[in-house]
Amino acid sequence: MEESIKIFKIGGSVIERPELLKSFLKDFAALPEPKILVHGGGRSATTMAEKMGVATRMVEGRRVTDEAMLEIVLMVYGGLNKKITALLQSEHCNAIGLTGADMNVMKAHKRPANPVNYGLVGDIDAVNARGLIGLLEQGIIPVMAPLTHDGQGQILNTNADNIAGSIARGLAQHKTVELYYCFEKKGVMLDPEDDSSLIETITSADFSRLKAEGVVSEGMIPKLENAFKTLDAGVEKVCIMHYQALQHVGSKQFEGTTLCLR
Amino acid sequence: MEESIKIFKIGGSVIERPELLKSFLKDFAALPEPKILVHGGGRSATTMAEKMGVATRMVEGRRVTDEAMLEIVLMVYGGLNKKITALLQSEHCNAIGLTGADMNVMKAHKRPANPVNYGLVGDIDAVNARGLIGLLEQGIIPVMAPLTHDGQGQILNTNADNIAGSIARGLAQHKTVELYYCFEKKGVMLDPEDDSSLIETITSADFSRLKAEGVVSEGMIPKLENAFKTLDAGVEKVCIMHYQALQHVGSKQFEGTTLCLR
Repeated sequence: MEESIKIFKIGGSVIERPELLKSFLKDFAALPEPKILVHGGGRSATTMAEKMGVATRMVEGRRVTDEAMLEIVLMVYGGLNKKITALLQSEHCNAIGLTGADMNVMKAHKRPANPVNYGLVGDIDAVNARGLIGLLEQGIIPVMAPLTHDGQGQILNTNADNIAGSIARGLAQHKTVELYYCFEKKGVMLDPEDDSSLIETITSADFSRLKAEGVVSEGMIPKLENAFKTLDAGVEKVCIMHYQALQHVGSKQFEGTTLCLR
Repeated sequence: MEESIKIFKIGGSVIERPELLKSFLKDFAALPEPKILVHGGGRSATTMAEKMGVATRMVEGRRVTDEAMLEIVLMVYGGLNKKITALLQSEHCNAIGLTGADMNVMKAHKRPANPVNYGLVGDIDAVNARGLIGLLEQGIIPVMAPLTHDGQGQILNTNADNIAGSIARGLAQHKTVELYYCFEKKGVMLDPEDDSSLIETITSADFSRLKAEGVVSEGMIPKLENAFKTLDAGVEKVCIMHYQALQHVGSKQFEGTTLCLR
């Protein structure tokens, strides 16, 4: 059987701490191809905005991106993207850093100003799946920054979870795809305080029940909703896992939460 | 005959003024393929460094790049690279923004600290010509930022004129290549004050003579030396021209200085 394309999304502290990032990228480089990396970088943009005296405004946990903030995220995410690419190259992984504008990989439209005006934030319309597959077939590993474009010359700030989900759905129309959300917990936990309470598999029905019971934390809800939408769209497998579990992907030692439709 | 690959280098004020940049990119998008764009961006890094309280130190007109300055050039050149890419996409030019790290397009080593310690500055060792030709064959237009990598995970600040020259020489081993340096003058002038004194063609011998006579200005000397080295290495044609002459490249209206070996 043809090898499935594995998409990994990272964000949070692993992005901000050089030693963690380096170790994660070493594990990523060692994984078999085909694979794609999608990174966020939110907090580093906030730090830079502070240095430059630009105010950060968040609504419901999401950044409002005015012109000044776009300049900052463009620089911070663009720079981070190239840093990751250079580190992967040093691990003999033939990476290429991309935004949605490059090769028109991801086109988006500016999110409507109602009910909340998030400014220059993109909602994804189209993924250039053939372009990405073309790179993978040449042994080139795409590294996606959380930036898209509108086709009219405007770069748009775009949520990295959404980018990972959209790419997975776009590629799933042509190939078998697996999507791995890497973060700072082992996966979805029954009790966030108890490290042994990992839920190994979760169905859509389980999720509805756990949500109703208030077991799933607020931050996890949009992540899981997005993930189930991706499963619905034909992605073979979606996992939520600790970024340190990367080396065990595909083996029996793997730990994380795997989503199932039923 | 197979179409030659045309490489265009831009820098200076055209980079910093949005309306000039947009108009230049419109002209670039309209040119026939295959083509490559190389951009600088020096002064915008200085402006950003000032905002961030990082001191800019120049030796013989070249930036000294310490760790703090590298962070700045990485962000500024990386961001500019993506902005140019998005603008080209809006002109239906299927651009991809690259640094030397992407697809290992350009590998460099840190310049020796003697006689001048320029810090994290790269001297180019190798160009991945096959990778660039592969993109061009798919109708993808490379847009190169003035950044390379050392293969050990380190990004290096690298002069854009040198990048353009190295890419031209690397590609010339496989294809017919033309190189165009675009700047704010019509070309090499006999009298910088006299706009009608353009030298239309200049041989290596002419250059030696004009240099000895003190006619060629100081800033132009390394540009021309680099350009003649490129001609020596098998590049078909090297021109120095005004960025507004771009629309006339390949036509009889073209104005600029064309370099000849003899």
